Amino acid sequence: MDFTSLFKAPETEGKEKHVPVIERGNGHNGTHDNVVIVTVGKETPHPNTLEHHIVWIELYGIKKENDQVVYIGRADFAPTVTEPVATFKTLDLKQFKALGAVSYCNLHGVWKNTLEL
Amino acid sequence: MDFTSLFKAPETEGKEKHVPVIERGNGHNGTHDNVVIVTVGKETPHPNTLEHHIVWIELYGIKKENDQVVYIGRADFAPTVTEPVATFKTLDLKQFKALGAVSYCNLHGVWKNTLEL
Amino acid sequence: MDFTSLFKAPETEGKEKHVPVIERGNGHNGTHDNVVIVTVGKETPHPNTLEHHIVWIELYGIKKENDQVVYIGRADFAPTVTEPVATFKTLDLKQFKALGAVSYCNLHGVWKNTLEL
Amino acid sequence: MDFTSLFKAPETEGKEKHVPVIERGNGHNGTHDNVVIVTVGKETPHPNTLEHHIVWIELYGIKKENDQVVYIGRADFAPTVTEPVATFKTLDLKQFKALGAVSYCNLHGVWKNTLEL
Repeated sequence: MDFTSLFKAPETEGKEKHVPVIERGNGHNGTHDNVVIVTVGKETPHPNTLEHHIVWIELYGIKKENDQVVYIGRADFAPTVTEPVATFKTLDLKQFKALGAVSYCNLHGVWKNTLEL
Repeated sequence: MDFTSLFKAPETEGKEKHVPVIERGNGHNGTHDNVVIVTVGKETPHPNTLEHHIVWIELYGIKKENDQVVYIGRADFAPTVTEPVATFKTLDLKQFKALGAVSYCNLHGVWKNTLEL
Repeated sequence: MDFTSLFKAPETEGKEKHVPVIERGNGHNGTHDNVVIVTVGKETPHPNTLEHHIVWIELYGIKKENDQVVYIGRADFAPTVTEPVATFKTLDLKQFKALGAVSYCNLHGVWKNTLEL
Repeated sequence: MDFTSLFKAPETEGKEKHVPVIERGNGHNGTHDNVVIVTVGKETPHPNTLEHHIVWIELYGIKKENDQVVYIGRADFAPTVTEPVATFKTLDLKQFKALGAVSYCNLHGVWKNTLEL
């Protein structure tokens, strides 16, 4: 068994409450092509209670040259205090052909998404 | 594309240097069935230099009742200071039918393994 | 000995290369008073090499009512891939009288800063 | 204000439920002087519920040569699933004159302890 096949993909869910949505953005300091924002609950906000919340988000890049998965970073959220939005300022997005995000809901397991660049 | 399919499985590698090996153990406080030890480089030690090291290990449980993937915990290692061995003391392993581990090498990407219980 | 007294404060350093600078911002989704951005190397960029880089940033809130330190979140950065900027979207900054940040440089230790709100 | 002065030290508490206790141990692979175990709730177990639990433990070493604080690692625990015990296998404890641990309780804030070596 490959347990990562149990990570849930976007097509599992209608309302897009859990899927980590990956976007490129301007970031907080003006225009910057290398900022990546990952949001859980972008369309329908996810609950943020002790009983039901998003614990963390991880972002990975998939290298153009050899398909290798490179860890970009991780954001950890305190339930009821912090919302599940993670912003990463990368040094060079051009080395990647895609970005992958994983997020974790304490009740509904691991979710994943991919953005082709 | 599902980027988690690029996580590398045990069969990718001959020498078992990268694959996170999952074991149940006695733990540090005498016999305890619920201790899980995850080691990278169990047979052939992995390098531990700034240029080449294991950054973290994550452990998950796969629930018997619904195949849901439950996050058990994560260990973060400082390169050249700490070795890539993670020990988790769970409250109830019986709820899981398998354990899954993910580890990250800064040069060779994401590795995964599964232990059926 | 209280080892946290060895965490380095802003006055330790002239060039402000290591100190985590805490700012309230508009965030990535338009105006939002509850976004907090923590940057290491805001005035003088910090190196981002395998040999010398910022590994993580943590953000805490200090509660008005009882001075308790509340964990808001943590951002983990991959050296040479990701820059040391962390953005946290909190649910309610008004409960805090101050924010505290801790950051870690693999060569120069732990740094801390406080922003009174 | 230095917010780390609000981290709670052992003398704050009578029952030792929150303080991270730092011990050197034999580890899981036989005798090994470089294994460090950090436990919260060693004497009086800490609750492990969604409402009240230990979220993480961090371990640091204080260098003999210059008092610098070196990050050894971090363990993240899933509430109701995993107990707050962290085991770190270091490469060289002899470089440190003391070890420092920080732990976080979601209800009672940040706790710290130091073990002189």
